[in-house]
Amino acid sequence: MPRFRLDIEYDGSQFAGWQHQADQPSVQQAIEQAIGKFCGEEVRLRAAGRTDAGVHATAQVAHVDLARDWPGDKVRDAVNAHLQSAGARVAILKAGVVADGFDARFSATGRHYLYRILNRRAPSALEKGKVWWVPKHLDTEAMHEAAKVLLGRHDFTTFRSTQCQAESPVRTLAQLDVSRVGDLIEVRTSARSFLHNQVRSMVGSLRRVGDGSWGADDLKAALEARDRAACGQVAPPDGLFLIGVDYPEDF
Amino acid sequence: MPRFRLDIEYDGSQFAGWQHQADQPSVQQAIEQAIGKFCGEEVRLRAAGRTDAGVHATAQVAHVDLARDWPGDKVRDAVNAHLQSAGARVAILKAGVVADGFDARFSATGRHYLYRILNRRAPSALEKGKVWWVPKHLDTEAMHEAAKVLLGRHDFTTFRSTQCQAESPVRTLAQLDVSRVGDLIEVRTSARSFLHNQVRSMVGSLRRVGDGSWGADDLKAALEARDRAACGQVAPPDGLFLIGVDYPEDF
Repeated sequence: MPRFRLDIEYDGSQFAGWQHQADQPSVQQAIEQAIGKFCGEEVRLRAAGRTDAGVHATAQVAHVDLARDWPGDKVRDAVNAHLQSAGARVAILKAGVVADGFDARFSATGRHYLYRILNRRAPSALEKGKVWWVPKHLDTEAMHEAAKVLLGRHDFTTFRSTQCQAESPVRTLAQLDVSRVGDLIEVRTSARSFLHNQVRSMVGSLRRVGDGSWGADDLKAALEARDRAACGQVAPPDGLFLIGVDYPEDF
Repeated sequence: MPRFRLDIEYDGSQFAGWQHQADQPSVQQAIEQAIGKFCGEEVRLRAAGRTDAGVHATAQVAHVDLARDWPGDKVRDAVNAHLQSAGARVAILKAGVVADGFDARFSATGRHYLYRILNRRAPSALEKGKVWWVPKHLDTEAMHEAAKVLLGRHDFTTFRSTQCQAESPVRTLAQLDVSRVGDLIEVRTSARSFLHNQVRSMVGSLRRVGDGSWGADDLKAALEARDRAACGQVAPPDGLFLIGVDYPEDF
């Protein structure tokens, strides 16, 4: 059976997350149902990142095996039409056959996330559900400087959910940049993989640095505590976007 | 009574337009009610641009007279709190006292609009209601070149709604630029004032140029016909944003 790679955009506010859930809508199920309507098959997707409820994606990647060697554009257009008529805010950006060995989750060598904070007195009218509104002024330079403490290989126990199922709390953080464009603060981060809630936990702690209640030393102490209780507020899912997944060039 | 200037952002998809309507929600009414809850007064707003149903704003300007000389920040925060609790996707970005002679509508010397077209095969999952989705590839350079035909002072009868109440169909178009950022086409236009549906009518006709069914000559002929029937499709409200209003420096 040919294996297809799907590049996917979605608005997470409609869903209980990427992953299949018994009684709640998931992105995975929405796409699996749309594929079923297209080709009559009961399929299972696997994605690079199992995003939580309310988390968005501009570039999620998943794979699926189909019985026939459909043209990718046909898969994309037909599945999008079924997603649209189901009212699902999910779009297949690209679809195409890949090598059998490709696994959207296990072949991935890097994941890129963007977290957006709206930092102004007025709440957001246009980006509701797609930013974290923080009215108090945040010092983005202090946040960017302090973020360097988290770069590299560390035990990120402080910054992972107690629900996290990963065997090891050790991860290697390749990027954690904080910048400001007007009232919008963008936190960009990359790693081979992240722990459950890691990005939102790091952003919540960086916010403490931004509002002056923490210094870079406090962030370092929180990391070194290896204790979930040492984490600052976990940032809400609203501002989080999966914006890229890397794969080896062979794929 | 002190006159206040309000700078306002809103998501138009929730509303039947800026202007008060008998049985439908309007942006104007949402703000007037929020002000009423704040200070107990029954007020009337006047805005620079009476945007249609589904049209958004990042920088609408309105004025209102209040009995007391409130600090602007207090007005902004209190009205925003009432808007939020009413579930209205409207935010007051700034509020402050202006000269009595200031009239948000009649003092305005320029209005700036942005129209966004999502030009890709896949529909939008993340910007639904905030872009016009056009799957067929559009030639933005051809659109930008042809748009020059509409610049300057013309009778825009072709490009105004038959409902338009303006006395004269003559307007002076100062800017009409078309550019592409990835899959997003941005049309930016400015004038002292616009006719009803003028921007959406111009964009709908420019789209014909973009997909090759019209040349610049056809656009010119449509303008010169001074006939509403000569207009291309009127673009949907979704992609339209009021992004700025100019006032003389004295204000």
